[in-house]
Amino acid sequence: MAQSKFEYVRKFETEEKLLPNCWIVVRIDGRAFHQFSTKHNFKKPNDESALALMNKAASVVMNEFKDIVLAYGQSDEYSFVLRKDTALYNRRGPKIMTYLSSLFTSSYVYHWNQFFKETKLKYPPAFDARVVLYPSDQNLRDYLSWRQADCHINNLYNTTFWALVLKGGLTNNEAEKRLCGTLSSDKNEILFSEFNTNYNNEPEMFKKGTILIRKRIKSPKHGKARLVILPLHEDLIQDKFWEKNSEILAIKT
Amino acid sequence: MAQSKFEYVRKFETEEKLLPNCWIVVRIDGRAFHQFSTKHNFKKPNDESALALMNKAASVVMNEFKDIVLAYGQSDEYSFVLRKDTALYNRRGPKIMTYLSSLFTSSYVYHWNQFFKETKLKYPPAFDARVVLYPSDQNLRDYLSWRQADCHINNLYNTTFWALVLKGGLTNNEAEKRLCGTLSSDKNEILFSEFNTNYNNEPEMFKKGTILIRKRIKSPKHGKARLVILPLHEDLIQDKFWEKNSEILAIKT
Amino acid sequence: MAQSKFEYVRKFETEEKLLPNCWIVVRIDGRAFHQFSTKHNFKKPNDESALALMNKAASVVMNEFKDIVLAYGQSDEYSFVLRKDTALYNRRGPKIMTYLSSLFTSSYVYHWNQFFKETKLKYPPAFDARVVLYPSDQNLRDYLSWRQADCHINNLYNTTFWALVLKGGLTNNEAEKRLCGTLSSDKNEILFSEFNTNYNNEPEMFKKGTILIRKRIKSPKHGKARLVILPLHEDLIQDKFWEKNSEILAIKT
Amino acid sequence: MAQSKFEYVRKFETEEKLLPNCWIVVRIDGRAFHQFSTKHNFKKPNDESALALMNKAASVVMNEFKDIVLAYGQSDEYSFVLRKDTALYNRRGPKIMTYLSSLFTSSYVYHWNQFFKETKLKYPPAFDARVVLYPSDQNLRDYLSWRQADCHINNLYNTTFWALVLKGGLTNNEAEKRLCGTLSSDKNEILFSEFNTNYNNEPEMFKKGTILIRKRIKSPKHGKARLVILPLHEDLIQDKFWEKNSEILAIKT
Repeated sequence: MAQSKFEYVRKFETEEKLLPNCWIVVRIDGRAFHQFSTKHNFKKPNDESALALMNKAASVVMNEFKDIVLAYGQSDEYSFVLRKDTALYNRRGPKIMTYLSSLFTSSYVYHWNQFFKETKLKYPPAFDARVVLYPSDQNLRDYLSWRQADCHINNLYNTTFWALVLKGGLTNNEAEKRLCGTLSSDKNEILFSEFNTNYNNEPEMFKKGTILIRKRIKSPKHGKARLVILPLHEDLIQDKFWEKNSEILAIKT
Repeated sequence: MAQSKFEYVRKFETEEKLLPNCWIVVRIDGRAFHQFSTKHNFKKPNDESALALMNKAASVVMNEFKDIVLAYGQSDEYSFVLRKDTALYNRRGPKIMTYLSSLFTSSYVYHWNQFFKETKLKYPPAFDARVVLYPSDQNLRDYLSWRQADCHINNLYNTTFWALVLKGGLTNNEAEKRLCGTLSSDKNEILFSEFNTNYNNEPEMFKKGTILIRKRIKSPKHGKARLVILPLHEDLIQDKFWEKNSEILAIKT
Repeated sequence: MAQSKFEYVRKFETEEKLLPNCWIVVRIDGRAFHQFSTKHNFKKPNDESALALMNKAASVVMNEFKDIVLAYGQSDEYSFVLRKDTALYNRRGPKIMTYLSSLFTSSYVYHWNQFFKETKLKYPPAFDARVVLYPSDQNLRDYLSWRQADCHINNLYNTTFWALVLKGGLTNNEAEKRLCGTLSSDKNEILFSEFNTNYNNEPEMFKKGTILIRKRIKSPKHGKARLVILPLHEDLIQDKFWEKNSEILAIKT
Repeated sequence: MAQSKFEYVRKFETEEKLLPNCWIVVRIDGRAFHQFSTKHNFKKPNDESALALMNKAASVVMNEFKDIVLAYGQSDEYSFVLRKDTALYNRRGPKIMTYLSSLFTSSYVYHWNQFFKETKLKYPPAFDARVVLYPSDQNLRDYLSWRQADCHINNLYNTTFWALVLKGGLTNNEAEKRLCGTLSSDKNEILFSEFNTNYNNEPEMFKKGTILIRKRIKSPKHGKARLVILPLHEDLIQDKFWEKNSEILAIKT
């Protein structure tokens, strides 16, 4: 069989290695999840089961790829941070991003029934992924701050929007118009004065998203310490988070 | 909220557009599928259900992305060919490969029970993907020929190997040694003389893999023609396939 | 000496190989040549010596790199076409473009005195370069047509502009305003009616630029044929040029 | 003129932007300079005029591109370091490397006569260039240390080699064999015991190469300070150099 005659086609493949000594971030994003969430009756503005399933899928990925030092998720997206010196798949970008998004997706579908006992998964969802490099610790922190600030902005908007619609009886269009041009303070005020809701008391997972990190925890049973993946819903924009978890940026092979 | 302060991090993202006027091939490949197939008791040398599930997942992908003009699968891999002039995701390589591999994986898990009624899926599988460009029709044909020749070589080997093990009572090691250095003709001879098996009579899907193409088929019910995805198990190395399905390479937007 | 301790820095280098089976075009472009031409009193609208020097520099490049099958120059730019199957520098893009632009620049300075006997070169000029891939012959022809059409448009504009300024006594600003929004036919008309100039009779090198190709020519002396670089000032947009010089696209290693 | 019909070919161009917040190093390297130095009778092991011309060409480049904070040259190569935050040509890699190598080459030819009064330039030389990114200050320092260590190793070898040939009367082949497998200490010993040469007393420019940095210097005439490009022949591997010239790594726009 003239296998060799055709093998020249391998020369058309490229080997895209990511620059060494940079933080590698892979961000996964749901495809057409607006529609997906509607079809599966996700609660508005936040569906706890849906977020818990995202966190579960992210944990599977983090458990499989030990070089992920932190993951951050909100809404239908998740960012995975690989240590600067990772040699995973020889730092080939396409390999890294396709495996991570594939395993994330796979776990999402695999664990669906565990989180949605009543709602059947109607069709297979998909997540795209991109890979971004950040040379400095500050760049990485700013990236994560950007995503968490995004989470806050969207959640405040959505919380107010759905209060206006579900409790206030406005149509979607009316709610959108009402919120057009409003500041954060305006939205806080609407929630407080019209719906008796103090935004500050909303669940931290909704306001801050979910941070997954590895922590050495002593087992209550036998007292032995072991690394576990810990979900946190904290502010990661301020220095405090990074001081408390200083091992994340300090990590070395 | 100082969203804007952090947004500079978007400048670290790259936009990798694939060269225009080239065939885009996305090849998906199972991660650690040797282990996966063992854990799920796939029949050796070929598991029809597993192959049928691969074909199903590929059909879902092909149905979703209309610019895929042909897909070719064998073992735990699938290649998708996008038309030369596709504008899918603005020809951004990472977007294309992550969505395709994610949807493929998702469908694989989603439809598992339909193909494996007795065997529960034990853990979420993953598939990586790569994207390769082929400038000419001949390059594309040679790529597909390369994969089909690979299918043949592997299947002949596996068929003989598992005959030696399952019917001949050899250990894996003994079978491996027995086949070391043998030519195709030797393997054919072993199958024929020792196991009364004519390799030519083996199922076409095992020997040739599966080609998915779109064909306009008249509905037997109402007589209207519509595009369906047709699975074929034919030789695509010879000219005949391309003459019979000349619309594949001739395709224009 | 701890050479080895530092050598890890080589891993930060990338190897950018150009896709096989594509025409490679390297386009070289003068840096700030508007200013350069003013400082060196280039004749307006076209300086024959300056163009001849460009052609000379391009010939040196083409003579050095045998895989260049055609070069096309106009104004302060030159495009070099490398055969689809060239293995020059292992198809590493940066290597190819930096060597070509460097040798072009070098030759431009080296041969300056030969073309500008009266005018001293006042400072070292620079040329940037870019590399572009074209998968099909049609794409390549369209690229070259694009540059030649650009040459025509610019030359017609410049010829009219400088007629208005040098012969018509307009200021640069007035000439610019006069030409603003005019069609080709308008410019032809201005040249004809106001300056008694039939644009069609302008030198072909100005209107069409310069094409360099290799031709096997019989020496008038000893009658032996040898490959020479031939400058042409012809239309390369029409089929005729490609029919007459069919070896260019047909070329194989 | 159907310019627009052809303009689609621009879509085949790529825009390769270099990752932000990384040191950009452009290394220029002479093409076939072994032959070039022979043809132009460069003195062995080091030709001061040739090195001075390299330094001159590098100064021109550094003078033109203000974002170059340091340049380092040895033999027929020169490395230019652009500040981490440079926005030069929008950080397009090909543009940066082709302009730098072009201007370097141009200046080399332009200033040849100034450094080689007796020797005519016989043909136009060429320099290739590559661009490499270094994310951290340490990576950058290690890169420069790598080049300076390389300078030392080569210079010690060449000094000994040419002593054996020019003073010792060995053929090139014999000298090569003599040095095969020798350590630095062996070469020092050969120089000292056989040629009465203490390598430590060799000119610093030969042993260390040339570092170009910008320094604010007070004019002896009018006392006003201004930035000048200063050539140094110092050790840049040790911390001392970086402490003394701490503004280089601290530089901000």
